[in-house]
Amino acid sequence: MADTLHPVHGNAAEERGALSGLEFFRRMIAGAIPPPPMVALLGFRIVEADEGRVVFAGTPAEAHYNGLGVVHGGYAATLLDSALGCAINTTQPAGRVFTTLELKINYTRPLRQEVGPLRCIAKVIHVGTRVGTSEARVVDASGKLYAHGTTTCILV
Amino acid sequence: MADTLHPVHGNAAEERGALSGLEFFRRMIAGAIPPPPMVALLGFRIVEADEGRVVFAGTPAEAHYNGLGVVHGGYAATLLDSALGCAINTTQPAGRVFTTLELKINYTRPLRQEVGPLRCIAKVIHVGTRVGTSEARVVDASGKLYAHGTTTCILV
Amino acid sequence: MADTLHPVHGNAAEERGALSGLEFFRRMIAGAIPPPPMVALLGFRIVEADEGRVVFAGTPAEAHYNGLGVVHGGYAATLLDSALGCAINTTQPAGRVFTTLELKINYTRPLRQEVGPLRCIAKVIHVGTRVGTSEARVVDASGKLYAHGTTTCILV
Amino acid sequence: MADTLHPVHGNAAEERGALSGLEFFRRMIAGAIPPPPMVALLGFRIVEADEGRVVFAGTPAEAHYNGLGVVHGGYAATLLDSALGCAINTTQPAGRVFTTLELKINYTRPLRQEVGPLRCIAKVIHVGTRVGTSEARVVDASGKLYAHGTTTCILV
Repeated sequence: MADTLHPVHGNAAEERGALSGLEFFRRMIAGAIPPPPMVALLGFRIVEADEGRVVFAGTPAEAHYNGLGVVHGGYAATLLDSALGCAINTTQPAGRVFTTLELKINYTRPLRQEVGPLRCIAKVIHVGTRVGTSEARVVDASGKLYAHGTTTCILV
Repeated sequence: MADTLHPVHGNAAEERGALSGLEFFRRMIAGAIPPPPMVALLGFRIVEADEGRVVFAGTPAEAHYNGLGVVHGGYAATLLDSALGCAINTTQPAGRVFTTLELKINYTRPLRQEVGPLRCIAKVIHVGTRVGTSEARVVDASGKLYAHGTTTCILV
Repeated sequence: MADTLHPVHGNAAEERGALSGLEFFRRMIAGAIPPPPMVALLGFRIVEADEGRVVFAGTPAEAHYNGLGVVHGGYAATLLDSALGCAINTTQPAGRVFTTLELKINYTRPLRQEVGPLRCIAKVIHVGTRVGTSEARVVDASGKLYAHGTTTCILV
Repeated sequence: MADTLHPVHGNAAEERGALSGLEFFRRMIAGAIPPPPMVALLGFRIVEADEGRVVFAGTPAEAHYNGLGVVHGGYAATLLDSALGCAINTTQPAGRVFTTLELKINYTRPLRQEVGPLRCIAKVIHVGTRVGTSEARVVDASGKLYAHGTTTCILV
């Protein structure tokens, strides 16, 4: 009854095993595969996927604030981690999945809900047989930069 | 009417201005100040606060999963960022607030909901007049380590 | 007698106070200002400088090896730190100097002396009034990537 | 003729294959194995080694300065990288060697030659079958903190 207990990610994880990373993300963009629960919880969605590059979108809201009157650092961290890992996985065939080993984020401007829709653009830097690295930036509609980061992922 | 638009963090941010960091977090632990929206959204809560050290608690659930059948990296990132920043702010008097400049996280084991309650223990490494650093670890009830990280915060 | 005790960096630090970052690095490229001692010790030199971008060059040798038969991680770390900081300082007028607050490096391939001349290309990501970030890559003559990194610098 | 071409690290790398990490570092402390070239070039030496913990020593000098009148960030980066990697390798048996995948450093105070002898104390955070992490701090004789960092190492 895995489907009952894990109604969303259970299916997604199974489908990912049979599809290349790029096919998987393109099906998710097309709506044929639901977004993972955490991505849905924060209102993110993947909107572009090419070999070595993905774009995630999100719009910060009241619910994402910290105690200082600005968006919590975890919001951009989650957005960046999503995009950074997927960018690496777009380069992988069916059955090969990389997962995050470490994540480094810089915050360059405070985020408030007034900034409106954000895009997080991630690109692969290096992918080897066991380890991959990527970089990403969070920008608003005018291209203003709010956060950037890099990750190291490792073959599961 | 800021209180209407920002019913939670607006009050919290005001109260923070009149309290030292340590008094503020102790009131939050006592329930007199509500947790910030993002912290509430992910089910985290601050459970201990001393000068230079805080503990956050959380329990990963289905809603925090990524597309690979484990908890999303953003969950531990948000938990760590919360604790790392608060640890530095416990050292600050009323009117002085530090905010996250950068965040570095290592994931040492996959998180699943079966791990149960987690604690995130953060300690200050160095606090100067303009810049502070801290470190934190995410462990389960048996002390097993799932993630650790460091941050650099800067005086707002 | 500071000049006697600090024959190289003393002069350089004084000259930097009277020149913009970009003018300073261009004089160094032209040979009118000697390289800093640590840069000279490891055989690095700055070879290009534009607003927001610099290139350093170096050739790894026997003297830079660790105990495992490859070049020590400190070699690329020093090369990257040099370039990352200078890239940010190319954007600063006379009298404004940024210094390294934190440094993050990824090693993507082992370095051996057989790789020959390396270039380290650094570019600014974001420069504000108090804080700047930049990114850099270490590549060989064929463009193969050996290491990459980012830094956060702060106004002194 | 590897010994002629690589008179120091060649021998060291061979010996490392036959010894556990801890035995290897203890022989180096005893003077039976020479320090690696890069470590010697910067005047560092390993002075303590236990399971999961090492201490390196060094004294910054004029030769380690950058162009701003303080010690170059690469000096502490190299010291930290040396200690961080060795701390992880003290836990490994003969034939198993971990190498640096990524390195993160924070600079908390400027270093000048007046600070005198420094110690860099590194401790393992987590060691798994393929990946290990460690943390380290650079302090002077009075315990004052100048830099700290973490690393991720991977089995070669």
